[in-house]
Amino acid sequence: MAIPLPDGLATPVLVVDPDVLDNNISRMAETSRSQGFALRPHAKSHKCGQIADRQLRFGARGLSVATISEAEAFARVGVDDLFIAYPVWLDADKAQRLRRLADDVALRVGVESVEGAQRLGNAVHGSARPVEVLVEVDSGSHRTGVQPHAAGEVGKAAADAGLDVVGVFTFPGHGYGHDAQARERAARDEERTLGEAAQALRDLGLDIRVVSGGSTPTVGQWQPGAVNELRPGVYVFNDATQLAIGTCGVEDLALVAAATVISVPAPDRFVLDVGSKVFGSDRSSWVTGHGYLPQFPQGSITGLWEHHAVVRLPEGVRGPSLGSVVAVVPNHICTPVNLADELLVVRDGEVIDRWQVTARGANT
Amino acid sequence: MAIPLPDGLATPVLVVDPDVLDNNISRMAETSRSQGFALRPHAKSHKCGQIADRQLRFGARGLSVATISEAEAFARVGVDDLFIAYPVWLDADKAQRLRRLADDVALRVGVESVEGAQRLGNAVHGSARPVEVLVEVDSGSHRTGVQPHAAGEVGKAAADAGLDVVGVFTFPGHGYGHDAQARERAARDEERTLGEAAQALRDLGLDIRVVSGGSTPTVGQWQPGAVNELRPGVYVFNDATQLAIGTCGVEDLALVAAATVISVPAPDRFVLDVGSKVFGSDRSSWVTGHGYLPQFPQGSITGLWEHHAVVRLPEGVRGPSLGSVVAVVPNHICTPVNLADELLVVRDGEVIDRWQVTARGANT
Repeated sequence: MAIPLPDGLATPVLVVDPDVLDNNISRMAETSRSQGFALRPHAKSHKCGQIADRQLRFGARGLSVATISEAEAFARVGVDDLFIAYPVWLDADKAQRLRRLADDVALRVGVESVEGAQRLGNAVHGSARPVEVLVEVDSGSHRTGVQPHAAGEVGKAAADAGLDVVGVFTFPGHGYGHDAQARERAARDEERTLGEAAQALRDLGLDIRVVSGGSTPTVGQWQPGAVNELRPGVYVFNDATQLAIGTCGVEDLALVAAATVISVPAPDRFVLDVGSKVFGSDRSSWVTGHGYLPQFPQGSITGLWEHHAVVRLPEGVRGPSLGSVVAVVPNHICTPVNLADELLVVRDGEVIDRWQVTARGANT
Repeated sequence: MAIPLPDGLATPVLVVDPDVLDNNISRMAETSRSQGFALRPHAKSHKCGQIADRQLRFGARGLSVATISEAEAFARVGVDDLFIAYPVWLDADKAQRLRRLADDVALRVGVESVEGAQRLGNAVHGSARPVEVLVEVDSGSHRTGVQPHAAGEVGKAAADAGLDVVGVFTFPGHGYGHDAQARERAARDEERTLGEAAQALRDLGLDIRVVSGGSTPTVGQWQPGAVNELRPGVYVFNDATQLAIGTCGVEDLALVAAATVISVPAPDRFVLDVGSKVFGSDRSSWVTGHGYLPQFPQGSITGLWEHHAVVRLPEGVRGPSLGSVVAVVPNHICTPVNLADELLVVRDGEVIDRWQVTARGANT
């Protein structure tokens, strides 16, 4: 877990353990392979060319991304098979950018409305490579996505617009519960809604070959055959939320924020130079505090500001001294990565590399 | 409020109304002047050279910042009077950087421990300009800062280390309550603790001339003479939290995130292409939802992901159509500014300028 941390780190800084990272990547690749799933990891969780490269070398088919600018960033570093797993709305500028991408890489795009599909069709008409389309289905998180019975209407509009409708996808956000039952229920919802939507599209004569699901929590929960593609993101690093819901162990944590103790106001309390501008302020109701402290597992970050994290310790637990460097595992890894310009790669207490966060801030 | 928004915006993007901004800046300057306070606004809330310049032109004495790298960023764009309102812990690298700053600009630094003061003294010994020191006092937010009676020990260490101890400062974070009483109580706490700490330092024979308090909520709550410097930050833009606690009106909101409607899953619900990677996920218990929608004041962002904001409307309220551009006022303005590379400046529905976020990501 990138511990021990190197001496003399300029904190705050994000630190990656490349061996844990590779273990996480290879294990997910092996799970997918052995269970017959195509793996298309979500790159929003790392935004980093070197990590994308590792995922692809270990057998990922391509990457998922959330925005056109994330796709552009990964295309620039050589990734040539990208799924924008988002119902992009194309104005004139985005239509042009998407068309350039479609000329350069194998591109898949999400749709969930008739008008969105028509705009996409217009944008990529005659592109060098045909753009593949997946219809987004709401499997229970009530974010974007059509109800399964409405998939046919959107799929027909996409086909009529000249697009190659190849599949369906969903985000099982309601699988982020605090118990295994929540994950299992979400997986059942995914199977059922994706299955119904795929059938509605097949009834139109479309060749539906991609049934894409899964975030990190629901991977491994599916019945054989119901889903054939995975899009987990967080698993590369894991985080304090995954630890709390039990989808990873401490040994699977591949990224920490290194922080300096700037204040020890009381024996049961110390303050670190990290905060919401370093790792965000995401906190699910089932997570205690604003991060996990591997060196002080009984400690809890009870107060968080932009550059201050106040840690409370139980009575009798000895805290670190002023000036010490302490590791914090963030609650939700997708946020800190997007706040940093680079990741330090550390093995055995030495910085061995620095990786640029290629797609930081790529929101459009 | 930067509304109407220009056509053809590439969303998501942060949009500033320069006239509301100037009103906010000039009003705070006038309040300070008329009540006899020095104004040293906190630049963490905008991180932008052009806005710093406006604050200084309207009469701010200098800027407050949270980190050495924020100070470096503002020094690069010509700000020559900076207070690092944070108990910086100097390792070898930070000591060097701080020394360079001390040679270049009028610098003040916060201290709250004996060892921190000694390290600071060593770092800036013999610098071209003497570094001024303010002792941080805990006025009730229980973050960093000494108890008032302990200020003497830290001040003595700083003076012994050759530093010019000029004052005391505090952050009244507990003033962010949902009622005016909380703000008033916090202001009383500031006066009392800063007064006690200043006296403890004066008892040592130190010439204490700066008594610095205040975030946006407690400005205007003080008795004459108790505090002589203000460090508000958020007031330049205001945000949905300030609106909720009543320290600003809708007409004082100077920054919105422009977002596109990417989905209309039901008549009472629409989804925007903004989320925690655009404006963070800060949410105080007294704020409803994840932002304020000026065009849909009865709407509430009930679901927030990295690139999705789900808005719920009361029954009978007509929502926007797919592809519309909608403004969102973020809950806490310091976060979105740190996620963006630039701010669009909009007047009467036209983009008239683009300002770089000079100190984005300046965390070290």
